[in-house]
Amino acid sequence: MATLSDIGVAAGINLLSAFIFFIAFAVLRLQPFNDRVYFPKWYLKGLRSSPSRSGAYVKKFVNLDFRSYLRFLNWMPEALRMPELELIDHAGLDSAVYLRIYLIGLKIFVPITFLAWAILVPVNYTNNTLQLQLKNVTSSDIDKLSISNVPDGSDRFWTHIVMAYAFTFWTCFVLLKEYEKVANMRLQFIASEKRRPDQFTVLVRNVPPDLDESVSESVEHFFLVNHPDTYLTHQVVCNANKLAKLVKKKKSMQNWLDYYQLKYTRNNAKRPLMKTGFLGLWGQQVDAIDHHISEIEKLSNEIAEERERVLKDPKATMPAAFVSFKSRWGAAVCAQTQQTRNPTSMLTEWAPEPRDVYWQNLAIPYVSIAVRRLIMAVAFFFLTFFFIIPIASVQALATIEGLEKALPFLKPLIEIKFIKSVIQGFLPGIVLKLFLIFLPTILMIMSKFEGFTSISSLERRSATRYYLFNVVNVFLCSVIAGTAMEQLKTFIKQSANEIPKTIGVAVPMRATFFITYIMVDGWAGVAAEILMLKPLIFYHLKNFFLVKTEKDREEAMDPGSLSFNTGEPRIQLYFLLGMVYATMTPVLLPFIVVFFGLAYVVFRHQIINVYNQEYESAAAFWPDVHGRIIIALLISHVALIGLLSTKHLAQSAPLLIALAVLTIWFYRFCKARYEPAFVRYPLQEAMMKDTLERAREPNFNLKPYLQNAYIHPVFKDNDDEEVEEFSNKLEEENVLVATKRQSRRNTPAPSKISGASSPSLPETVPQGSVP
Amino acid sequence: MATLSDIGVAAGINLLSAFIFFIAFAVLRLQPFNDRVYFPKWYLKGLRSSPSRSGAYVKKFVNLDFRSYLRFLNWMPEALRMPELELIDHAGLDSAVYLRIYLIGLKIFVPITFLAWAILVPVNYTNNTLQLQLKNVTSSDIDKLSISNVPDGSDRFWTHIVMAYAFTFWTCFVLLKEYEKVANMRLQFIASEKRRPDQFTVLVRNVPPDLDESVSESVEHFFLVNHPDTYLTHQVVCNANKLAKLVKKKKSMQNWLDYYQLKYTRNNAKRPLMKTGFLGLWGQQVDAIDHHISEIEKLSNEIAEERERVLKDPKATMPAAFVSFKSRWGAAVCAQTQQTRNPTSMLTEWAPEPRDVYWQNLAIPYVSIAVRRLIMAVAFFFLTFFFIIPIASVQALATIEGLEKALPFLKPLIEIKFIKSVIQGFLPGIVLKLFLIFLPTILMIMSKFEGFTSISSLERRSATRYYLFNVVNVFLCSVIAGTAMEQLKTFIKQSANEIPKTIGVAVPMRATFFITYIMVDGWAGVAAEILMLKPLIFYHLKNFFLVKTEKDREEAMDPGSLSFNTGEPRIQLYFLLGMVYATMTPVLLPFIVVFFGLAYVVFRHQIINVYNQEYESAAAFWPDVHGRIIIALLISHVALIGLLSTKHLAQSAPLLIALAVLTIWFYRFCKARYEPAFVRYPLQEAMMKDTLERAREPNFNLKPYLQNAYIHPVFKDNDDEEVEEFSNKLEEENVLVATKRQSRRNTPAPSKISGASSPSLPETVPQGSVP
Repeated sequence: MATLSDIGVAAGINLLSAFIFFIAFAVLRLQPFNDRVYFPKWYLKGLRSSPSRSGAYVKKFVNLDFRSYLRFLNWMPEALRMPELELIDHAGLDSAVYLRIYLIGLKIFVPITFLAWAILVPVNYTNNTLQLQLKNVTSSDIDKLSISNVPDGSDRFWTHIVMAYAFTFWTCFVLLKEYEKVANMRLQFIASEKRRPDQFTVLVRNVPPDLDESVSESVEHFFLVNHPDTYLTHQVVCNANKLAKLVKKKKSMQNWLDYYQLKYTRNNAKRPLMKTGFLGLWGQQVDAIDHHISEIEKLSNEIAEERERVLKDPKATMPAAFVSFKSRWGAAVCAQTQQTRNPTSMLTEWAPEPRDVYWQNLAIPYVSIAVRRLIMAVAFFFLTFFFIIPIASVQALATIEGLEKALPFLKPLIEIKFIKSVIQGFLPGIVLKLFLIFLPTILMIMSKFEGFTSISSLERRSATRYYLFNVVNVFLCSVIAGTAMEQLKTFIKQSANEIPKTIGVAVPMRATFFITYIMVDGWAGVAAEILMLKPLIFYHLKNFFLVKTEKDREEAMDPGSLSFNTGEPRIQLYFLLGMVYATMTPVLLPFIVVFFGLAYVVFRHQIINVYNQEYESAAAFWPDVHGRIIIALLISHVALIGLLSTKHLAQSAPLLIALAVLTIWFYRFCKARYEPAFVRYPLQEAMMKDTLERAREPNFNLKPYLQNAYIHPVFKDNDDEEVEEFSNKLEEENVLVATKRQSRRNTPAPSKISGASSPSLPETVPQGSVP
Repeated sequence: MATLSDIGVAAGINLLSAFIFFIAFAVLRLQPFNDRVYFPKWYLKGLRSSPSRSGAYVKKFVNLDFRSYLRFLNWMPEALRMPELELIDHAGLDSAVYLRIYLIGLKIFVPITFLAWAILVPVNYTNNTLQLQLKNVTSSDIDKLSISNVPDGSDRFWTHIVMAYAFTFWTCFVLLKEYEKVANMRLQFIASEKRRPDQFTVLVRNVPPDLDESVSESVEHFFLVNHPDTYLTHQVVCNANKLAKLVKKKKSMQNWLDYYQLKYTRNNAKRPLMKTGFLGLWGQQVDAIDHHISEIEKLSNEIAEERERVLKDPKATMPAAFVSFKSRWGAAVCAQTQQTRNPTSMLTEWAPEPRDVYWQNLAIPYVSIAVRRLIMAVAFFFLTFFFIIPIASVQALATIEGLEKALPFLKPLIEIKFIKSVIQGFLPGIVLKLFLIFLPTILMIMSKFEGFTSISSLERRSATRYYLFNVVNVFLCSVIAGTAMEQLKTFIKQSANEIPKTIGVAVPMRATFFITYIMVDGWAGVAAEILMLKPLIFYHLKNFFLVKTEKDREEAMDPGSLSFNTGEPRIQLYFLLGMVYATMTPVLLPFIVVFFGLAYVVFRHQIINVYNQEYESAAAFWPDVHGRIIIALLISHVALIGLLSTKHLAQSAPLLIALAVLTIWFYRFCKARYEPAFVRYPLQEAMMKDTLERAREPNFNLKPYLQNAYIHPVFKDNDDEEVEEFSNKLEEENVLVATKRQSRRNTPAPSKISGASSPSLPETVPQGSVP
């Protein structure tokens, strides 16, 4: 156990490193040639252009104005100055609400910290159990301030129980207020938004196959019949995955061509050469520029061919479509209702924003999704509890002996003492770290496999899984010391009332470890975030090798985005630590508060100046955030029950169980009360906005506006000509409304698959009814 | 442990008693004066009238045709003869699908029984573990046929695992087919039904209070604005609970009056007298007929007054309304969507059938419901696990000493030897039995307290709770012998992998107990059901004391109904026993099969001839039935895992866990695939039916049809005059559409509570738009 002074030294070191990061950031951001790395958001918004201060050539790259260095922390108040409404306008609601997570951390933990230090710390400190009990162990100051210092069976524990109630009620109160606020912000945001295609559009999946009609025709017929007053138009989803791959390849070729051409212009003497084999290491040597030009030509032809195929071939059409309506009301109705008898065909849901659509997954059929979910649930279970097995085996390989056996030719190299020690000291750790770095990617791939159709939902799913992984493998493993697998074994073998005890007893003992963790990961880590080291390096590399025009420079910027799937679970870990330690070791709380404060400022700055959100989900993630804070509360209750029952105060358990039941009830109450605002769209709102808009712009023609909104990005990317072609094709299809369906008089029973083919319904809808 | 011959004797006794019940039934049902007890369904349908065979007076009461007694079992084939479609037509879909639960039992267990006897029984029997191990214990034949006879660690257990897979897959297959079938039947039923008010009507609850408008006005405004094309009319719910109570009281008075008048006509000498005090035991003696006449007069006045009050007083209007639409499509849209920003106001759901509405609960506000659910969940937990405490205390009181203490004046009576032995032998059992008889009523009261709005949902909720109670207190307590409270303690103290062992080891040992249970409760109990003893007695009592007219005789019939809340959980207990014992003690299976067969015939007969369903929910209970059979499967897996791990075959656990995971996945798959058919109403179906109907009856005027459909039954009960009055009042209200809302120009922000009051919307809707 560390003493208070040990912690103080560690805090000093971490604060110092955070400080160094801030100074480095202050220096780097003031250099004009880094401007695009530290202020990309403004460039993307078109509010800032390349620094072009007239003057010396040097000034274009280095800032020589020394006064500006003195105010090196002035970005902080600047970041805080922008009001929330402007922030929403500037960076979107997602980002603004994301910042509220940090703010909630402050709102919850600042009062809790004060209360805990005012009441719990004195209550704990004025005992001397530890001096008496542990005479041979050097008891630290931190333990003196924690619950461990209270003697067994003492009545003082009632203070902790009362505090647990107070903390829980306060947290729930803040959560309730915040949920209400965010729900209102979301509705306000949706209501105040400009006209957007996704407000009028519904994604229809699993269009049932029909022998006589194409997907486009059967969608059109279905909605003309079943939403006669509101249906406007639709766009069928094409399987352009191969096309997208080709386009991507062409772009990379183009990059290489640029690189070689730039090289050639800089050194005119020698035409650059390259080898055609793998990674340019083997194969025939050719002129690089000519080779790339011919390759690009070839690819262009292939792309044109593939594009033709996608547009013509009915097999390239997926059984999914974006159906647009004349009014938001119509879309809201269609998105919230069931269309056909078979609840797995003609599945409707709100269309994600066009840029939020994850195109690859639109074609997965329903049963396949059910199977995929099962597989991924099982895979995730094994990933969480048995991930240590493959890593351990790689780590075994990464020892000296393992390496020598696997790659004998490296033996002389490895035997060098320095390299040997490096391998022994770092390699196992690096293997683990590498895995942990790739973990979000693995989780993202798992989510993609599950078939979610929007990037935002993919990120939300990954975040949930990442959080669970963290709780098990970071929190529990650190607390009980051992791999998740070992714990699983212990937990299965332990009785139900032993598990809380195991956790509860271990939690206060690991306080110093988590304090260090918070400082390293939370303080220094957050400060490092602002440096943007990776984008900085990549930008300058690209700038040097590829950039020719202003547009290239634009593309070389990598502003990044919030990446909800990794960021939010990390914050939740701090909520978990704060909740669990609030009653047990209140010393930890100030560290949490500092983290939330620092992170709030840093991320506010990043959101204002750097990140460029890829999509806008209107804070659809909030129910998840809310739910996870509740989980943290419940874990804290379990740990406290466990601890108190080892402290001869088992009779307090019912009180704390009641608290947990109340918390669960609170969660359910909030879910019913506020979650619909994040899932559904109230008809009243839709009608209000429709009415307003109709009054303001009575003559606006929606159809052309919506016609091309949901076209696969590869069709949009290059030139508008193809969009034209694509939409022409759609127009053509619209003419073909008269049914191709054969008469079914011989088979009078209504077809099971396609409900619209029931003979009792008017099969051909007059063209005139399409507005 | 009983031997096979013991079981055989028990089976003989129970079969005999069942046989006696059948003979008694055969005799009683052939007597004309019992006709109304055993064929009330036909009377209610108007297809049968009182037996009026001309002939001897005796023949009117006793059937003297001896030939008919010879064919005393011929009701069985008769019951089976009616085809299912006719049955649906005759008794409704609820009853027809309820019968399918028994049929599913046969479909699942007949093949399982054959397979188990063909494979498992020989595998078990050809060991001789029991002879070797338990030389001092007399091992029975039944145990020889069970899994207990297989030696520890034997490879033969793999047969049981394979069989567990086979049984699970077969059950899931049957369940899947059946779910599909029932879902189709439901949709078919809804589609083929005649026009019914609930198809066009949505129940709106939690209408937000508005200072300027009455509930009726604000509902009308809201729906005129937000469903302009489909809204037709609405009926506000009135708080007529007090009125209903008065009407009920009057009816009971009327009954007494009838009784006294009949008494007087039979014995003209003496006018009947009565006392006015409690139960007619104390108080002033008066002329009974005069007294009742005056009381009824008084009540009639009170009723008239109260009716007036309900119609006039705005406080008697509840914030709920039945809103009717012009088309099924409009109602389907409204029922499935969210109306306002606040998801807890203007809650819409499909209106239950008029006779299914539970009027008392329509006024409960949302937050109150959330709190009530919490209270009831906690109460149910205590009811399940601690119900034994109050019963034990009553039982303690019900001993000789307890009684003597509590009621000392009874001492001489109690000391009589015969009475003493009766008290000692029966009283504790009777107390428990009494509680168990009242349990469904208690559960029903709990459900009512939770605020469900239809009788069908009340019954479904009670059934779920009753099932859970049965699993814990009948199944688990019988298996592990001990009260639920003791088990709860054990389970909390045991480790997670000990719990299945405890269950698994105990299950095969209790096989004979459950076999006896099945025979007594399942065979003889079901046979007793057909006798209808209680209605028989009550009918004849009423017939003698009250009946004067044919209409009275009609009312004296008590056909009863299926009472889903008690019947279904009882069946589920047999599913549970069958599943759990299928792999362990296959001997039990034939008994289950006999139960399902017998019960199917008996209840089919009852449904055809006796029961009169009070409402029609179109098989809305099926998802519950399906889910509970899945629970039975899961419990069987847990028990098998536990048993095998004590048999030194713990390595088989992953295989069985995988089976359980697959089963859960199957449940989720079915839920997503079929449950929507029981919750939502596809727009395609609605549109199809609307179109058909519009084509058939283009001039049908819906409004008068729907106007009075949802009037509180007390307004309907007596005379049509009041209905007229009520609907006149409604008409009057319709004229008042012009808003009373005051101008809000001074407060430009839209009102939070009432969304419709936003100033940007047209507030007064022209009367002309109401068709």
